[in-house]
Amino acid sequence: MIPVADARTRILAAMRPTGAETVSVAQGWGRVLASLVVARLTQPPADVSAMDGYAVRAADRGALRVTGTAPAGHPFAGQVQSGEAVRLFTGSVVPEGADSVLLQEDADRGGDTVTAREAPRPGAHIRRAGQDFAAGDPLIPAGTRLGARLVGLAAAANHPWLLVHRRPRVAILATGDEIALPGDPVMPGGIVSSNAHAIAALVQAAGAEAVVLPIARDTAEAIAAAAENLSGVDLLVTTGGASVGDHDLVQAGLGVQGFELGFWQIAMRPGKPLLFGNLRGVPVLGLPGNPVSAFVCSMIFLLPALEVLSGLAGSVQRTEQAVLRHPVRANDHRADHLRARLDQDASGIWHATPFERQDSSMMRVLAEAQCLVLRPPHAPALAAGHPVPVLRLDTLWL
Amino acid sequence: MIPVADARTRILAAMRPTGAETVSVAQGWGRVLASLVVARLTQPPADVSAMDGYAVRAADRGALRVTGTAPAGHPFAGQVQSGEAVRLFTGSVVPEGADSVLLQEDADRGGDTVTAREAPRPGAHIRRAGQDFAAGDPLIPAGTRLGARLVGLAAAANHPWLLVHRRPRVAILATGDEIALPGDPVMPGGIVSSNAHAIAALVQAAGAEAVVLPIARDTAEAIAAAAENLSGVDLLVTTGGASVGDHDLVQAGLGVQGFELGFWQIAMRPGKPLLFGNLRGVPVLGLPGNPVSAFVCSMIFLLPALEVLSGLAGSVQRTEQAVLRHPVRANDHRADHLRARLDQDASGIWHATPFERQDSSMMRVLAEAQCLVLRPPHAPALAAGHPVPVLRLDTLWL
Repeated sequence: MIPVADARTRILAAMRPTGAETVSVAQGWGRVLASLVVARLTQPPADVSAMDGYAVRAADRGALRVTGTAPAGHPFAGQVQSGEAVRLFTGSVVPEGADSVLLQEDADRGGDTVTAREAPRPGAHIRRAGQDFAAGDPLIPAGTRLGARLVGLAAAANHPWLLVHRRPRVAILATGDEIALPGDPVMPGGIVSSNAHAIAALVQAAGAEAVVLPIARDTAEAIAAAAENLSGVDLLVTTGGASVGDHDLVQAGLGVQGFELGFWQIAMRPGKPLLFGNLRGVPVLGLPGNPVSAFVCSMIFLLPALEVLSGLAGSVQRTEQAVLRHPVRANDHRADHLRARLDQDASGIWHATPFERQDSSMMRVLAEAQCLVLRPPHAPALAAGHPVPVLRLDTLWL
Repeated sequence: MIPVADARTRILAAMRPTGAETVSVAQGWGRVLASLVVARLTQPPADVSAMDGYAVRAADRGALRVTGTAPAGHPFAGQVQSGEAVRLFTGSVVPEGADSVLLQEDADRGGDTVTAREAPRPGAHIRRAGQDFAAGDPLIPAGTRLGARLVGLAAAANHPWLLVHRRPRVAILATGDEIALPGDPVMPGGIVSSNAHAIAALVQAAGAEAVVLPIARDTAEAIAAAAENLSGVDLLVTTGGASVGDHDLVQAGLGVQGFELGFWQIAMRPGKPLLFGNLRGVPVLGLPGNPVSAFVCSMIFLLPALEVLSGLAGSVQRTEQAVLRHPVRANDHRADHLRARLDQDASGIWHATPFERQDSSMMRVLAEAQCLVLRPPHAPALAAGHPVPVLRLDTLWL
């Protein structure tokens, strides 16, 4: 059995970022940049006022003659001479000759004149040209996921279009004689298929695109048929049929189509029967059929794989630290992933409370968990209060 | 000026959750349930094997005759009598008569017989019917956002369709003579409009739908025209024109269309000139024109408002605690929202490092921030190491 970290390293090494496409900045949210975004202009474009007030010379005293008004977008054409002032608003260009902004709340306006109640400091309330960024500045590196703020920054830098990686397209193949789609007739002893749609949702949560293939029955022929045409697919995920039981047909069925096995059997719980390989250039991740195992394996292997496929730079498992509320017992040779609640106390420390029942058939417990507590192979028993690495489930709508 | 908490309370009180629509469970990810999901079947449907092995009677000793094989989905029709065993796999129904599962790794198989190397315990490796959930169990309450795990749970509970709240539709109106869309000609002293698309992305991040209205120029007539037909809109967000300057035209323009002012001027920084009211039944949130102020106000007011519109139960500001890496000085009468980096040390404590430059024109600083440090009005100076509430920006692709 292969250690989790080795398996992940080998899986990630097999992933190639998707190619680039052009999208509007309005479509950019959640996408991963395929090229550096460089500022196409300087922001602010000139020295501008940070407040509503008057452009003045700081050295001037007494009543100043207001010679004009310059709203944002309507710069004053002339100069501010000694004894003069120009009415400004937030974002207005500071006219030539002025070196300070007199706040309107510090000014007495009377007809065509304005008088400072408090002498302005030179440079006061002026945002300098390029204070935020200058034309040519590298702003957002390739390999960055565009959150809402970066969409705004790219727009502000005058980019109507962005080069982004194509959304990875992931085909999901659920196998099994016992499973039926929700609402379809369920045979005696059968269950409703949940893996394909849970994993499809996780794929969406990662910003990728899911294709749910028809369920393949438990014959090598059915599985071979399902994998016959994978054009346009960046990754094939299967669930079920990867165990050591007599009914392991995924390898047999995919083998007909040219599957090359990378490895299988990971030293982890839940999720031992994981399989990884390559089918005519398409990486194949074979997940267990058990829904909890399939989801945990998706967190550990599929999410990072999707990040590399998406073009994200520096993709890593984002664990955080939490402190145990209860003791946990020593672990065996398999890395364990305890479903747990998470809460933060008043002093800011996160506490993890593993559920009593860790049986991998408990979908409801998985759904209620806020994190997975990571327990390495042969980890010793830990007392309450001991820090442990956790993988949060309560973000990104997982 | 109104305190932030009061403003938020009044804004949230004015929001009505959207009505319900029917979507496929395959479209359910990220949606908010409009009705309780009840289990439509029992899971597991019968006592099933948790492992690959043999259904046996725990009291039996010696070689057992293997009378059949029952893969998952193909239950054994007969009974297990004393001296007999039936081959099972993970998920197979345990046949009548058997009370235990003998693990295949603990069994010696020879032709038609199997012998236990280790006597199985009664009940071993059997998952009981209904261990996960039973038909009729309330599984997922109305008002819950469906993450990937809950999509799986709803599917497993045999729901092909779900009732969810309609995605709130938010119209975004950017105003100003000085702004131009990215790539469009920019006038002298003008800037590129970034607010509308940053806020549209934040709206998407919240699972809602954004409609970017045409930019309205700085006349009451232009703003009135933009707000003339708001059919199908759940919330109107404006940016710019809400300040105390001479060029406050949003109220004038919307007033022509019947705008009723709720309140404006919030005791916060960045973001003082926030406005809230109602335009012929559509709530109106007027954000500042400054991009950083607009985004911070969106985090504080728009995100919670979207949660209520989306039908989420118990929507609250989700602050976490972090510890200051540097001292911060005493705050004035306005609630402050310091842009800061966030990192976790080895002992699990989160540390916030506010940026030196907090000028609200710095989009780049906002983009690099991982959290907002919340500083209440008149908060005292704090030393490094003091805990502070933070609002994380590094989740949900904000």
